[in-house]
Amino acid sequence: MKRLLITGAAGGLGQMMRSRLSHMAETIRLSDLAEMAPAGPGEEVVQANLADEAAVHDLVAGCDGIVHFGGVSVEQPFDPICDANIRGVYNLYEAARAHGHPRIVFATSNHVVGYHTQDRHLGVEDPMKPDGLYGVSKCFGEAMASMYHSKFGQETALVRIGSCFPEPRNHRMMATWFSPDDFVSLIECVFRAPRLGCPIIWGVSDNEESWWDNSAARYLGWRPRDSSARFRDKVEAGNTRPEPDAPDAVYQGGAFTAEPIHRD
Amino acid sequence: MKRLLITGAAGGLGQMMRSRLSHMAETIRLSDLAEMAPAGPGEEVVQANLADEAAVHDLVAGCDGIVHFGGVSVEQPFDPICDANIRGVYNLYEAARAHGHPRIVFATSNHVVGYHTQDRHLGVEDPMKPDGLYGVSKCFGEAMASMYHSKFGQETALVRIGSCFPEPRNHRMMATWFSPDDFVSLIECVFRAPRLGCPIIWGVSDNEESWWDNSAARYLGWRPRDSSARFRDKVEAGNTRPEPDAPDAVYQGGAFTAEPIHRD
Amino acid sequence: MKRLLITGAAGGLGQMMRSRLSHMAETIRLSDLAEMAPAGPGEEVVQANLADEAAVHDLVAGCDGIVHFGGVSVEQPFDPICDANIRGVYNLYEAARAHGHPRIVFATSNHVVGYHTQDRHLGVEDPMKPDGLYGVSKCFGEAMASMYHSKFGQETALVRIGSCFPEPRNHRMMATWFSPDDFVSLIECVFRAPRLGCPIIWGVSDNEESWWDNSAARYLGWRPRDSSARFRDKVEAGNTRPEPDAPDAVYQGGAFTAEPIHRD
Amino acid sequence: MKRLLITGAAGGLGQMMRSRLSHMAETIRLSDLAEMAPAGPGEEVVQANLADEAAVHDLVAGCDGIVHFGGVSVEQPFDPICDANIRGVYNLYEAARAHGHPRIVFATSNHVVGYHTQDRHLGVEDPMKPDGLYGVSKCFGEAMASMYHSKFGQETALVRIGSCFPEPRNHRMMATWFSPDDFVSLIECVFRAPRLGCPIIWGVSDNEESWWDNSAARYLGWRPRDSSARFRDKVEAGNTRPEPDAPDAVYQGGAFTAEPIHRD
Amino acid sequence: MKRLLITGAAGGLGQMMRSRLSHMAETIRLSDLAEMAPAGPGEEVVQANLADEAAVHDLVAGCDGIVHFGGVSVEQPFDPICDANIRGVYNLYEAARAHGHPRIVFATSNHVVGYHTQDRHLGVEDPMKPDGLYGVSKCFGEAMASMYHSKFGQETALVRIGSCFPEPRNHRMMATWFSPDDFVSLIECVFRAPRLGCPIIWGVSDNEESWWDNSAARYLGWRPRDSSARFRDKVEAGNTRPEPDAPDAVYQGGAFTAEPIHRD
Amino acid sequence: MKRLLITGAAGGLGQMMRSRLSHMAETIRLSDLAEMAPAGPGEEVVQANLADEAAVHDLVAGCDGIVHFGGVSVEQPFDPICDANIRGVYNLYEAARAHGHPRIVFATSNHVVGYHTQDRHLGVEDPMKPDGLYGVSKCFGEAMASMYHSKFGQETALVRIGSCFPEPRNHRMMATWFSPDDFVSLIECVFRAPRLGCPIIWGVSDNEESWWDNSAARYLGWRPRDSSARFRDKVEAGNTRPEPDAPDAVYQGGAFTAEPIHRD
Repeated sequence: MKRLLITGAAGGLGQMMRSRLSHMAETIRLSDLAEMAPAGPGEEVVQANLADEAAVHDLVAGCDGIVHFGGVSVEQPFDPICDANIRGVYNLYEAARAHGHPRIVFATSNHVVGYHTQDRHLGVEDPMKPDGLYGVSKCFGEAMASMYHSKFGQETALVRIGSCFPEPRNHRMMATWFSPDDFVSLIECVFRAPRLGCPIIWGVSDNEESWWDNSAARYLGWRPRDSSARFRDKVEAGNTRPEPDAPDAVYQGGAFTAEPIHRD
Repeated sequence: MKRLLITGAAGGLGQMMRSRLSHMAETIRLSDLAEMAPAGPGEEVVQANLADEAAVHDLVAGCDGIVHFGGVSVEQPFDPICDANIRGVYNLYEAARAHGHPRIVFATSNHVVGYHTQDRHLGVEDPMKPDGLYGVSKCFGEAMASMYHSKFGQETALVRIGSCFPEPRNHRMMATWFSPDDFVSLIECVFRAPRLGCPIIWGVSDNEESWWDNSAARYLGWRPRDSSARFRDKVEAGNTRPEPDAPDAVYQGGAFTAEPIHRD
Repeated sequence: MKRLLITGAAGGLGQMMRSRLSHMAETIRLSDLAEMAPAGPGEEVVQANLADEAAVHDLVAGCDGIVHFGGVSVEQPFDPICDANIRGVYNLYEAARAHGHPRIVFATSNHVVGYHTQDRHLGVEDPMKPDGLYGVSKCFGEAMASMYHSKFGQETALVRIGSCFPEPRNHRMMATWFSPDDFVSLIECVFRAPRLGCPIIWGVSDNEESWWDNSAARYLGWRPRDSSARFRDKVEAGNTRPEPDAPDAVYQGGAFTAEPIHRD
Repeated sequence: MKRLLITGAAGGLGQMMRSRLSHMAETIRLSDLAEMAPAGPGEEVVQANLADEAAVHDLVAGCDGIVHFGGVSVEQPFDPICDANIRGVYNLYEAARAHGHPRIVFATSNHVVGYHTQDRHLGVEDPMKPDGLYGVSKCFGEAMASMYHSKFGQETALVRIGSCFPEPRNHRMMATWFSPDDFVSLIECVFRAPRLGCPIIWGVSDNEESWWDNSAARYLGWRPRDSSARFRDKVEAGNTRPEPDAPDAVYQGGAFTAEPIHRD
Repeated sequence: MKRLLITGAAGGLGQMMRSRLSHMAETIRLSDLAEMAPAGPGEEVVQANLADEAAVHDLVAGCDGIVHFGGVSVEQPFDPICDANIRGVYNLYEAARAHGHPRIVFATSNHVVGYHTQDRHLGVEDPMKPDGLYGVSKCFGEAMASMYHSKFGQETALVRIGSCFPEPRNHRMMATWFSPDDFVSLIECVFRAPRLGCPIIWGVSDNEESWWDNSAARYLGWRPRDSSARFRDKVEAGNTRPEPDAPDAVYQGGAFTAEPIHRD
Repeated sequence: MKRLLITGAAGGLGQMMRSRLSHMAETIRLSDLAEMAPAGPGEEVVQANLADEAAVHDLVAGCDGIVHFGGVSVEQPFDPICDANIRGVYNLYEAARAHGHPRIVFATSNHVVGYHTQDRHLGVEDPMKPDGLYGVSKCFGEAMASMYHSKFGQETALVRIGSCFPEPRNHRMMATWFSPDDFVSLIECVFRAPRLGCPIIWGVSDNEESWWDNSAARYLGWRPRDSSARFRDKVEAGNTRPEPDAPDAVYQGGAFTAEPIHRD
């Protein structure tokens, strides 16, 4: 690729992936609402608000690929979620439509199915059960991507990210951990595939504990290589095992299901 | 019921149902953004904007049931859809949470599955394929209802309305027609059921042409009685039969799939 | 048929069906642990304990059909359930094996799936979720019938009875009511079919509220004709509507799910 | 329609339908390998061999609809089946491709699933299990129709005919009977539908005994009105009830499963 | 764990696992109807009859985990099966209810599905088809565990054991072999999981021949490591290959399907 | 085996497998319509036309296994396909019936499902969607094998071959590649299994890109060992990546879907 846009580059996920994706394009355009580290070689840094339609069109212009990490990624009040994850997503897809339909990796979330219990092995066609306003906003994003695919042929990889951190941090993440390296190899597959379509992909490593079935996306040729198993002792040592009725043991969305609606 | 709120009372659907639902409660509170006919006996008329949080809380206070027809019901630019169908729905559910969780009939739409082809017989767990910004906003509404049910026990009947008019108007509506009388009997069942939950229900009469399977909601005891068949001759006489590749013959969402994104 | 055995003839179901099945055979042999009304024309009355192997063999000898209503039909301590519904069933199938494999109508129960929620539309292959010792004993009976069919070709109609009474008595029975006339027509179909096999059949009338899908048994040609709907006003008038979280509104097994284990 | 071609017009099915379909087009072109009754008003009679490519092209030219009853319809040696049902079908689809893709009603058969047991409730996507060379040839025909639809958009209604006779003749036909009137109304639906596609439709009336699920074709709006039930007494009186292990009681294809390969 | 109860400790399976599970708890309490080897360090040995309710309560008291291998594990007459596998299971679950609901590993069996043919790839929700009185008694045990889970929250791992021996002994065991080491790692997972629920788990190693799908239990994080493949040559050398129609080649339950009912 | 027949031995596949299968039997009988390399040790070479019934019977006589690679394997006019793949298959199964039902490996093709899109993960029970006359002829072959299995117990492994070449040659073959070694190990499993039945098996290696689910055939114990991944760089270097709308990127059958009907 000539130029790859990465939104949300100042966030945890964005920072972790910024260096790992540098080989994907001649130029990496990095964007966030917040300040970012200055541009290195082969990088462009553009501060922008996803809710600002013109700014988003400027961001997307000239890019032949988008990795969309931007937006709110935890429970927050409705207003910021609506600005970034609803209006921002509309702006992004309109900008992509205006600028040649660059392929999009869209960071959606396991919290679109957060109220499913952990003993269910979910496929991508199982009904959504979002676990908060954040999860609902990601359902909206998936619906928007589907519509732009049906109507305009816009291709998107809807990656329902489990827990993308350097290591799993608690018992629930033994099942949801998504190693940054596995995410990188997934992004490589997405941009390598002759035809992408608009698949939903569980963003998760090959952990022993597993809730999600990725067979529907096997046409892309992606196979995760990491497993949370090598961190098992550390996780067991550093965390109290959750009680059987704790949200972290019952629901796929874990503690998000116990969050209130944030009023401000 | 003591008081039933009907939103969207000035719209086509609202006007048609206003008189038909008068027996459902001692008082019917009617609301819309637009002006409505003055209150008759047992009616209250309250003009309100769904995007106005305080106004929506006032609307809901004191009601023990809600029939939510309000919001945009066709393709429009993103701003009015976002105000009414996104922000408005958030306001409605927050108001319901603040005021004792009155049971809600939510008018969602066949346009959440509009890009499925007409030769598919869909169940309620089949993936959504919205056919425009309107359809995407209804996906959002369904996700919101699901989340408030999981988190707070809020009960909603998600009625995916086909085509609710006095008569079917074209060939496609031979399959999608939902007679106003059948809608009334469905609303009666929803408020009569000891437990509602948060079911998705296809809002459609017992037409000979059928795309949708309502068996998942049969626990409510609703059975449509009308059929579009008695209007067949009139529909055939008044309409040119669509070509096999016309949107009205290919997609469940019909002509909505051919709508552009409305920019203003 | 020459002789039809009806067990459990002194119970509520047995008494209700005794007269209605008189046309099914030249002789009706009636049996129960308890005393029964004396034999009328074309009847034989034999008091017997299902736990008594020899007695059961005597009962079955000479019969070319069996309608098995016998055994415990409510929650009771383990001992009587084990005697009648475990040991008794073993005795019955051994007797049938010894005496020419007469076709059996076996009264099993909705309580084998009692912990499924009422918003699930169950097929006969969905997993069992019994709601008490009684329900567990009926799971055992279904397993026994399956095994004798696989191993010896013994044919059984496993009728999971909903609520077989002259009228539905409460809100839950609006869904579970099984009219005695519909049960009779089912039994006629069972003995009329050229080949029965070992089907599971939901014993329920054509009620508007419906939880169960009988399509797997449609090869038998049975169609229920009655509906609980004509008793709706009476049921509503005579019963308080259950709260949404009451066992009668949540679970298919209703109040059985709230029963303790009976220790004596 | 201007001109409707009916092949196999000299056969049992063809004769029965000849008069019943006269209202479908201004001209009915009737064809068979065998001699037919002379043309009446609005009829053309053309004797032709389906294995003769040129003859088939002549038959199809000028027709805007085809009802294909032609070919072998019972177990026969391979040669006649290959000529009429393999080569003949290729000729028919090539002719349709050359002459504007007239919509086709193709008489396929329950014998494509004849080795499924009668206790299975089949949908149209269940695997085929043909019961003889005839059934295999019909599998070929369905595959050919599917391919011409995928590659050229040729529309076909694949009607898997049960037993199309004036009355059911034995116990098995209580389930498979397809009244001529129901077949007519199906053909009307096929030519009336704005878009047909290439559906598989079970050709069977609304009998009490039922093995087949037609929900996948409900988009066409066809509902059978007849039932074999009114002939039950006559069938029971005129036929010995099959033994439970007789092919007529075990397999959907009945006695066809007991046919040998006909060597000449 | 403080104390783990292992029932059936004198049996083949019990002896094999006795040493392998010593690390699971400070104290291992071993029990059987038969005499066992004397207690070693960290062991308690208690002879007891599962049919004796008081004895079973004594066994369970003070344990925080149970591995239930006890009971009859082959075809036997009904009386011993009823005592150990029916009454014994009731006694066990009542004892667990009385003593704090220790987590249970319950040794159920592939013989609950023994009449399924070997060419079926079964999930845990496929219908049971027991192959004898023993299999029927295990269906009862699974139903009992399900009911105690629904009613009281009692957690059980229902392990449908294939063939747990040091090595596979015949062709059928190439598919059913369950290495003792894999069983140990499964038991470790069961007691390690924050929440167990009441899953059905196929007790089988990662053999090349496979009939059973364990994806429904992948949330537990168990992955078998052994395979019967390394014994293939030995099995082929030591056994005649079964004929295609031999029970060992046709049915998942193998020779059990050919067992008669044992009358004494 | 004493004698194994390999048909189509002069073709690409046949030549590749000729040497690799020499260990399977004391004598390998090689046959083709075309001339073949002369017989080596343990080989018999017999030129024969599959359309010649007597010749096929002679071929099959004395063989206890058949690997059927013979027939047309690309799009051709109807006549040669009918001779070799329709009549030839009938001749083969009749010959097998006359000569003791030797087990058959039948080379069917992914082109029976060629019009399914590449984003579908197909099981063996998904409907066929052939992509040309060749694919239709293979649907016929599968139907014939199924019928001979149901009627006569003839066992066949229906191997739907992906792309069996020494190396994958283009992007599509990254998913469809079937290494000759994996094919050999599959054939070994087929002849080793105590009972084969009539399974459909996807003939494909363990490639990262995957469209097909072989779990239904796991009872045979076959596990492919090769993967196309090691040729990825070479394939990418030697081929232009297909456009997203190219047949090679859209359909499982790839370029076959773009083939016309060959008229001569």
